[in-house]
Amino acid sequence: MSRTDRAVAEELDRADPLAAYRDRFVAPEPDLIYLDGNSLGRLPKTTAAVLAEAVSEQWGRGLIRSWEHWIELAQSIGDEIAAGIVEAEPGEVVVSDSTTVNLYKLAVAALDARPGRRVLLCDDDNFPTDSYVFQALAAARDLELRVIPTDLDAGLSTADVIEALDTDVALASFSHVAYRSGALADLAAVTAAAHDVGALTLWDLSHSGGSIPVPLRSAGVDLAVGCTYKYLCGGPGAPAYLYVRHELQDQLRQPIWGWFGQRDQFAMSGRYDAAPGITSFLVGTPPVLSMLGAREGVRVVADAGLEALRAKGMALTSYLVELADAWLVPLGFRLASPREAERRGSHVTLHHSDAWRICRALIDRRVVPDFRTPDRLRLGPAPLTTSYAEVWDGLDRLRRLVEDGVHESYADSRSRVT
Amino acid sequence: MSRTDRAVAEELDRADPLAAYRDRFVAPEPDLIYLDGNSLGRLPKTTAAVLAEAVSEQWGRGLIRSWEHWIELAQSIGDEIAAGIVEAEPGEVVVSDSTTVNLYKLAVAALDARPGRRVLLCDDDNFPTDSYVFQALAAARDLELRVIPTDLDAGLSTADVIEALDTDVALASFSHVAYRSGALADLAAVTAAAHDVGALTLWDLSHSGGSIPVPLRSAGVDLAVGCTYKYLCGGPGAPAYLYVRHELQDQLRQPIWGWFGQRDQFAMSGRYDAAPGITSFLVGTPPVLSMLGAREGVRVVADAGLEALRAKGMALTSYLVELADAWLVPLGFRLASPREAERRGSHVTLHHSDAWRICRALIDRRVVPDFRTPDRLRLGPAPLTTSYAEVWDGLDRLRRLVEDGVHESYADSRSRVT
Repeated sequence: MSRTDRAVAEELDRADPLAAYRDRFVAPEPDLIYLDGNSLGRLPKTTAAVLAEAVSEQWGRGLIRSWEHWIELAQSIGDEIAAGIVEAEPGEVVVSDSTTVNLYKLAVAALDARPGRRVLLCDDDNFPTDSYVFQALAAARDLELRVIPTDLDAGLSTADVIEALDTDVALASFSHVAYRSGALADLAAVTAAAHDVGALTLWDLSHSGGSIPVPLRSAGVDLAVGCTYKYLCGGPGAPAYLYVRHELQDQLRQPIWGWFGQRDQFAMSGRYDAAPGITSFLVGTPPVLSMLGAREGVRVVADAGLEALRAKGMALTSYLVELADAWLVPLGFRLASPREAERRGSHVTLHHSDAWRICRALIDRRVVPDFRTPDRLRLGPAPLTTSYAEVWDGLDRLRRLVEDGVHESYADSRSRVT
Repeated sequence: MSRTDRAVAEELDRADPLAAYRDRFVAPEPDLIYLDGNSLGRLPKTTAAVLAEAVSEQWGRGLIRSWEHWIELAQSIGDEIAAGIVEAEPGEVVVSDSTTVNLYKLAVAALDARPGRRVLLCDDDNFPTDSYVFQALAAARDLELRVIPTDLDAGLSTADVIEALDTDVALASFSHVAYRSGALADLAAVTAAAHDVGALTLWDLSHSGGSIPVPLRSAGVDLAVGCTYKYLCGGPGAPAYLYVRHELQDQLRQPIWGWFGQRDQFAMSGRYDAAPGITSFLVGTPPVLSMLGAREGVRVVADAGLEALRAKGMALTSYLVELADAWLVPLGFRLASPREAERRGSHVTLHHSDAWRICRALIDRRVVPDFRTPDRLRLGPAPLTTSYAEVWDGLDRLRRLVEDGVHESYADSRSRVT
């Protein structure tokens, strides 16, 4: 049997200790190969009922009285993330706002904590919204935004970070897993290097949290933000989470003071008095229904366990790379991700000069990938919800459509939503 | 027949042109008198099905492809608010973030637009979270926070605002309807006075939007924020809306640059380039499920029409005041709201020295009011969902429990959630 036979995939699925978790997610179209779980995770089977109950019973029947169930969702879901998703202690994580707003809050808090320093350090492989926040802060505070040029396929080089760090740097902020290539940064080494010059670190976990272990405490990370709608399967636009290391919580003050960050909130004092601990990093009233969606996703991911997810994620992406080498490289594809599994998160990206049209054609063949400018096809086989057979089928459909030139009949008109 | 007979309420209900709208909301407990629709509006009957479809079909089946339905929700729901809830033009309102975050965004944008001015003017009757935002900004930017002392029962005095305004004022920000008393500020006169000294205005519409007309355009208002989970019945913590007058949209820049405010968002450019118009006031990925809840609420309120809601709101609160005068004043209650209907929004507040215990006892009698420190009982008979008979029954239960001294058996232990 050849390594590229479908039987290999079937054998790998039979041996997959996480295989049963696929049944905990809705999959109304069994022929759809979903390789975009890193953009929007699948719907857990429990979520619809939980939300229906929240709407009809908690809101519809309980009305305002149901705030007793909702008032500490930010902290309680945060603690579930700390217990099961990232390495953090209780009281170090809350769920709130969007990733972008959280990034802003924590970046300002960090910059304020290093008043004499005029540099915000990042790289050019950050997700765009992160870069925009940094550009806003550099403009508003007259800072130098020091941007490390990065090999976008290989990811952040620790040596380059060390080279760029000096005692002018207030804050260094990077993505744990790069959104394009899936390259995994060295969380511990980069954080240590930043600490060596007295800078704070702020990590974006959006493409790592829920698919690989995130050793925040042991790496000494100061601050982090992450997304719940990708690998955490929390639903479209579900609120983000943020992490502030315990030791920093009373030193740092985020800039948007609001009533959910107030000590004794319902005393309705007119004078802001920051709540102790992580609660002071909250702002306004949270979108409860979307919060409850996030909680369901966090629970099923935590139940599977990050060690098992990491093992499967490495095996699944390695299998994908193996098939791509055999089938796709001869068709003009080229790997746009690190080749070594331990240097990747859970997605793999391929270059192809016709990536946009191939992406459109592939969607019509019922495989959902993601296009990333200018020539990248991103394949995210979320380890919790993707089988080896799906990877095989997806790459088989991809190979055949390119072999047949099917994509050549597509116009190269890029739509707004990809 | 006496004016305090229940038959009067029944007659008013028969003549109520909005009576049929009550059937468009879920009311699983017909004996529950809900006088807190100004904190969390009731559940529209259509919402559960809309959300169930969004969860199962859009998310569960459509997955990432459903972003075509969601990508412009912020603008399209904003336009529905502009068409049916507040007086604004298309492209002047978006739904995003929390009220607090929006207030921060717009306040910073306004302060940046008046760089030579060092005063932020507000009053001491703002909702606490608004005050906290202003305190944060005053501290961060070394501004003078000029706070007008306000009669908390009578509401904002235009004469006091005029007195406090001078050419040092960059921004003046007030609540359109006061959260405690329900007092209605003079939107047009205060805005004109601020403009006379070259200041910008930022109004909080949380307690007016959806219950009374809000003449933003004709009053010349610059900026506003509002809440969708109160009178707009959008669900717990549903995202807030913000308004920026067309003429200012290209002059003002909000501080949290994010990918939902970026021109040509999915080109994924690393350089922030603000989208034209109101879109630049967006930040990160919106919580879609909570957004869809907001849309359902906005639609049913807009369908009823703000003129009709205002007429009923004045009649309903006047009827409440009439019953309070007859029944409750002799029991130690005192009006904590303007007596003239045209000077109130849609809620009425009463002082009583034992308000906390009365509030607890009333909830146990299946009437839901709201307690406001230190001695206020707030009664919000949302005009869209409350009948005259409910007002009668609610005040009747209140009167009888105080007459019987039922509340005296309650401990005065104030719980966190009120």
